[in-house]
Amino acid sequence: MTRTNNHNDHETENLQQYLQRVIYLLSKHRLVEGFVEMQEISHHKLDNSQVHKQNLSELQSLLDKIHPADIAYILEALPLKDRLMIWDLVKVERDGEILLETSDAVRETLIATMDSGELVAATGQLDADEIADLAPDLPRYVLDDLFQTLPTEEREQLRSAMSYPEDAVGALMDFDMVTIREDVTLEVVLRYLRSLDGLPDHTDQLFVVDRDEKLKGVLPVNRLLVSNPDVEVSAIMSTKMMKLHPDDKAQQATHAFERYNLVSAPAVDMNGKLLGRVTVNAVMDFIREESENEALNLAGLRGEEDLFAPVWKSVKNRWIWLAINLVTAFIASRVIGVFEGSIEKLVALAALMPIIAGIGGNSGNQTITMIVRALALGQLNVSNARKLFAKEISVSAVNGLVCGSAVGLFAFLIYRSIPLSLVMTMAMALNFLLAALLGVLIPLTLHKLGRDPATGSSVMITAVTDSGGFFIFLGLATILLM
Amino acid sequence: MTRTNNHNDHETENLQQYLQRVIYLLSKHRLVEGFVEMQEISHHKLDNSQVHKQNLSELQSLLDKIHPADIAYILEALPLKDRLMIWDLVKVERDGEILLETSDAVRETLIATMDSGELVAATGQLDADEIADLAPDLPRYVLDDLFQTLPTEEREQLRSAMSYPEDAVGALMDFDMVTIREDVTLEVVLRYLRSLDGLPDHTDQLFVVDRDEKLKGVLPVNRLLVSNPDVEVSAIMSTKMMKLHPDDKAQQATHAFERYNLVSAPAVDMNGKLLGRVTVNAVMDFIREESENEALNLAGLRGEEDLFAPVWKSVKNRWIWLAINLVTAFIASRVIGVFEGSIEKLVALAALMPIIAGIGGNSGNQTITMIVRALALGQLNVSNARKLFAKEISVSAVNGLVCGSAVGLFAFLIYRSIPLSLVMTMAMALNFLLAALLGVLIPLTLHKLGRDPATGSSVMITAVTDSGGFFIFLGLATILLM
Repeated sequence: MTRTNNHNDHETENLQQYLQRVIYLLSKHRLVEGFVEMQEISHHKLDNSQVHKQNLSELQSLLDKIHPADIAYILEALPLKDRLMIWDLVKVERDGEILLETSDAVRETLIATMDSGELVAATGQLDADEIADLAPDLPRYVLDDLFQTLPTEEREQLRSAMSYPEDAVGALMDFDMVTIREDVTLEVVLRYLRSLDGLPDHTDQLFVVDRDEKLKGVLPVNRLLVSNPDVEVSAIMSTKMMKLHPDDKAQQATHAFERYNLVSAPAVDMNGKLLGRVTVNAVMDFIREESENEALNLAGLRGEEDLFAPVWKSVKNRWIWLAINLVTAFIASRVIGVFEGSIEKLVALAALMPIIAGIGGNSGNQTITMIVRALALGQLNVSNARKLFAKEISVSAVNGLVCGSAVGLFAFLIYRSIPLSLVMTMAMALNFLLAALLGVLIPLTLHKLGRDPATGSSVMITAVTDSGGFFIFLGLATILLM
Repeated sequence: MTRTNNHNDHETENLQQYLQRVIYLLSKHRLVEGFVEMQEISHHKLDNSQVHKQNLSELQSLLDKIHPADIAYILEALPLKDRLMIWDLVKVERDGEILLETSDAVRETLIATMDSGELVAATGQLDADEIADLAPDLPRYVLDDLFQTLPTEEREQLRSAMSYPEDAVGALMDFDMVTIREDVTLEVVLRYLRSLDGLPDHTDQLFVVDRDEKLKGVLPVNRLLVSNPDVEVSAIMSTKMMKLHPDDKAQQATHAFERYNLVSAPAVDMNGKLLGRVTVNAVMDFIREESENEALNLAGLRGEEDLFAPVWKSVKNRWIWLAINLVTAFIASRVIGVFEGSIEKLVALAALMPIIAGIGGNSGNQTITMIVRALALGQLNVSNARKLFAKEISVSAVNGLVCGSAVGLFAFLIYRSIPLSLVMTMAMALNFLLAALLGVLIPLTLHKLGRDPATGSSVMITAVTDSGGFFIFLGLATILLM
């Protein structure tokens, strides 16, 4: 079953070009060599004289050999038109696994071109937990269709997987577990395993359950391999294992995987019944997504943006942040407006004031980064918050005085006025203290209120050090110099 | 063997307090329950009447039961004095594995308290690749001592592991591989495995090598378990496997692990000889470190900072950034200085100019974040750079006009001057275009020069949009309004 090609013939004339771009993208990551024969690909490169039909089938057979994650990578790096061209050449039965690997933004552009039949066919190949990952991007009626076609057990799994928020352990869970009983010998376990076609990926341990599917322990595969086949499972299984609950924060699970070097961990309900498992693979994807979202949010981008998104989509993605910053800039501007009389009398103030505001903002952001990190690692609590506070204030006092002296000297060299340079020094030091104070208070308060301190803190501290810096500097100048 | 307690008796009176803090830290992460019996811990909490000696031994026995990664976590969350108190209570033979888990900054504080005998004893327990991880923090003479005590093979491994830069695959490599020959049956392999005491962590595949230790293929453990014991290794091993080279960038290895969902991968030299392996565990630690360093660098922090570092250390950590920003702020200040005459005539300019500079900087940082991300993912190349450029310029043109209209309206509402508000609008739009232009050019240029675009880009774009914004706005005002 291949997809109907929506593109006209004249659009296929660039096929050779696509082929070369694909080859380029693959060869840039030469690590891929294990999965595709590089010689085979390079051979294509030299072959420029072939007719389009042949190119088409060549590209298609090349794509068939490529790992779904690599196809996803290629699709993401191509502009929309080329992307859809390649997407059309991919076999429909591989669509599902490729969609799983693409970023949300790119997935959207791909799903938009598929009709409901194609979507049901593509997702029908996937496991329940994988369908759940795609679910937010699928049209309602496709989901309904899918529910109809799934066997009862998988339907239940899908329903359960879809019921957890994205940042819960339940959303990372899959259902590919091998379970055994504790009262059998390893010999029996080995025979049972041999009766299976294969084991799920990341099966580093078998889950020992009782008749009610209650988790009794785990049998690491590595222990199974080195043990005498005559002993019983109960004799060598671990009963002290990491157990996750589907309602736990995914963040906590990632900490556990990192700390204890896990490959998989069982997820159980309140009664200890085995529900599923989480693998290091899902955890790593989650960590990557988290850190990317953090970087994007810091720059005020709402979410990941398709590199080749239409202009209006990018504009939308970036607007909230610009709007917030407009408001804070207007406020800062009004603070300056209050002191227009002083600036008229001493125009040097206008040239010097951005220094106070800017450097103060930088210092505040340094403090915030430290605090946000400590909060994320769970290292901040009531007993050490005061110590940390004292430390940040001291660091800022030192930095403020040194920076203050530097800007004071600068002001003196330009304007030859000692009172003006003293005002600079004082204002700088005070703005540093303000930055330290609020650099600790803002993230702690956001955290207390249950908000994510990583996102809002930076905007807020900059707003404070801008308006505050202008106010402190111009206010001091008005009092002391006018 | 327990360490000699350096603390005097009067310092142990706070033991109950430490105990409770440890319990608090542990209980906050209830995931830990699999490894320590929580009831056992809570029991301690109620027990306030005991004498110090008993508390001491209780705390000690509690620490003995805790996973090294958890002890590292507790140490990081404690102020220096308390931290060393707990560190003294830890058994010396566990010191090595705990040091491996702490952050660099905290590790430094712990190593500083240990004499060379303790350090050799602690690190002697570790594998070669683990010693290599600690090596940068160990005094020279301890390393020399260690080299003397290691068996030849491990000494060679240590020398090799230490020879790779931190961001190379070689630095992630360990030497815990199980190797087999291809001409034996699975039955023989299973018997061989049973003769071992245990398998190394993360053994998801056995490495098939020939007499010269050349890697011929890999035998996934999961395939070994489901296959008929009578077949030969060569019949079921995979020959198309991901091979890493120790000189590869670690970054590339992490992409491969994420894309192909690997648990381990072999590392081979140029001749295909098996040198070691990389596990998902090392990869995950690397990803975490990378993303933390990125966050710290963005805020201009040179490296991770011990939460309770002495003030002067923190000052040092933060100074480079502040110094750079001082210079760019001075330049921006001089740009304003050039236009002091215009500001004197129309003081509103002083109040309005920070808006142009600030919002322009925000927009530029959004562009940079997009480009840096695309570069990191390897999605940017010559053929699509121009497309991306056009897109960023268009997005900025739209945002610049909308933002420009907003600030123009703001200026009109405050100052009731249509020419002034038109100058605002034009300046804003132009600064947005400048931000887009350099937001693409700066990271691309840094990348071309082989520098990390994530670190320097943000400072540079802010410098450009500040000075440039002031120049555009004040210049336009001088030409059109004076």
